[in-house]
Amino acid sequence: MRIDLNETVQLLEKSNNILLLCHSHPDGDTLGSATALAHALKAMGKRVRIECSDPIPKDFSFMFEGLEACDFEPELIAAIDVADIKLLGREAEGKYQGRIELCIDHHGSNVLYADKVFLEPDSASTAEMMYFILKEMNAEITPVMASCLFTGVSTDTGCFRFSNTTVRTFEIAAQLAKLGADTYNIIQVFFETKTKTYAALERLALDSMRFYFSDRCAIVCVTQDMYAKSGSDESEVDRLSNLPRQVEGVLVGATVRELKDGNFKASVRTHGDINASAICKRLGGGGHMGAAGCTLYGTKQQAINSLLKEIQAELDADTID
Amino acid sequence: MRIDLNETVQLLEKSNNILLLCHSHPDGDTLGSATALAHALKAMGKRVRIECSDPIPKDFSFMFEGLEACDFEPELIAAIDVADIKLLGREAEGKYQGRIELCIDHHGSNVLYADKVFLEPDSASTAEMMYFILKEMNAEITPVMASCLFTGVSTDTGCFRFSNTTVRTFEIAAQLAKLGADTYNIIQVFFETKTKTYAALERLALDSMRFYFSDRCAIVCVTQDMYAKSGSDESEVDRLSNLPRQVEGVLVGATVRELKDGNFKASVRTHGDINASAICKRLGGGGHMGAAGCTLYGTKQQAINSLLKEIQAELDADTID
Repeated sequence: MRIDLNETVQLLEKSNNILLLCHSHPDGDTLGSATALAHALKAMGKRVRIECSDPIPKDFSFMFEGLEACDFEPELIAAIDVADIKLLGREAEGKYQGRIELCIDHHGSNVLYADKVFLEPDSASTAEMMYFILKEMNAEITPVMASCLFTGVSTDTGCFRFSNTTVRTFEIAAQLAKLGADTYNIIQVFFETKTKTYAALERLALDSMRFYFSDRCAIVCVTQDMYAKSGSDESEVDRLSNLPRQVEGVLVGATVRELKDGNFKASVRTHGDINASAICKRLGGGGHMGAAGCTLYGTKQQAINSLLKEIQAELDADTID
Repeated sequence: MRIDLNETVQLLEKSNNILLLCHSHPDGDTLGSATALAHALKAMGKRVRIECSDPIPKDFSFMFEGLEACDFEPELIAAIDVADIKLLGREAEGKYQGRIELCIDHHGSNVLYADKVFLEPDSASTAEMMYFILKEMNAEITPVMASCLFTGVSTDTGCFRFSNTTVRTFEIAAQLAKLGADTYNIIQVFFETKTKTYAALERLALDSMRFYFSDRCAIVCVTQDMYAKSGSDESEVDRLSNLPRQVEGVLVGATVRELKDGNFKASVRTHGDINASAICKRLGGGGHMGAAGCTLYGTKQQAINSLLKEIQAELDADTID
């Protein structure tokens, strides 16, 4: 059942022991939104625990300061920025199947697995929604909480560059800056800093860029060999995702990366009316209109060919429209 | 003489024929600030002309729609975002020497060549100052004017990434977005689009990156040969300036590019307390704390060595502090 902001706040306010679930491969939005909410609930005297099936990358550790782990039987289990229960990771999926009462999310692809879902597909991030939840709860947004939310707001919009960025996004960013969010350092860490190994990987990736369909599509392919050569690894590869789409005239940019098991993971980024989610759905994946992902099987060439086939179908559909 | 916002507005309001001067090699801030002001003055029934010694790059042409050129003897000559009369270009410098009554600028390095100077060195852009000038004038900020100002606000802050970005920057960005600035397309054009030739030049430039002083300094060198190989040219090289500083641990990043006359131009970008302007001033150039430039002479190696010497001096001074 879809619920609104007020019902969401009521549900949170009436519960005292709350478990917040983040998606696996945690990003700035799932962690920033969950931690900001946890800080607010804690300040209201509630017990809160955040769970994530993967370790928290060190760049996000500031969000957890003051949120010591505590053990309790949850009255309310809420998934934050989790579009599908599968994204909790296999173990958590099994453990929490049928028990998730609330989901707060902005993914249009949300499969509505929770009892009650507060979903705003037009929101650029779950952190934007969380800002209004905290305001509605009359929570005091501390500088740390503002930084948690600003991390979600900025990372999910590519630092205000993606098409999901709205007037509201800029307004919330300004409010969070005013509330003491450490905007400069957050942006430096997530957007303006490359490790030397990432810089080397990026060079190799750019060398691999190939163009298709009269240069309307560009694909970068990252192999395990490139990780070895650059000293980089999979933890740094996500940042490459926007590069192919940045080339003038490119409507669909994809980064195809070789996994350790020999299969491939594709990140697809599109411009305008080209639907990245539609491309990836036909390959068993999903995501947003402008940014989506899927797994590809077979050799490198087979993987790229299967992706190219769906990209072509989407480009052709757009031409016909 | 330094003047304030009110005096600046009074000066503009009492004049009917106003010439606005932009700096040569015009950027988003000088053009966006001048055109926004021109639109406002025109709406007040005044005659306005904008002059720039270089052609207006096509990405900025939207700013001039509705501002047809008109010929008149100016009552007021105002330089917008011009730190030194030399930056008008040689011909304009000679023509307007001693005649510039007003300068509106945010460069701390402003040499105070105008009779009256409204200078806010803490403002991230002249466009931010212009926003308040237009508000004080009770000008209606149309969507086009909002786009002109947003271009200045975003380009001079590297799309909110530079250390000059403040709470005020985010607040003005939000206001301009609300007033109808075409934020998405502006950001796409200036930050998220690379021509194929620029993408090729960037690859070559990244390959040339060398590290110095225990990796606290990174220098990229762009030669005329690289322009030939990539099909790119000097018009695209500015965008490379931030790349060296992005590498983790780098405090001073510089891009040294070969000019057609065989000399070199350096763009220096720094982090934290390292003063880019101090480095470049000692080499005859100037700029801001975090971003400055200068011309270097001699062979490529001599040019780089002369720059390295001043970078080392600045890094050493910082270590001693």
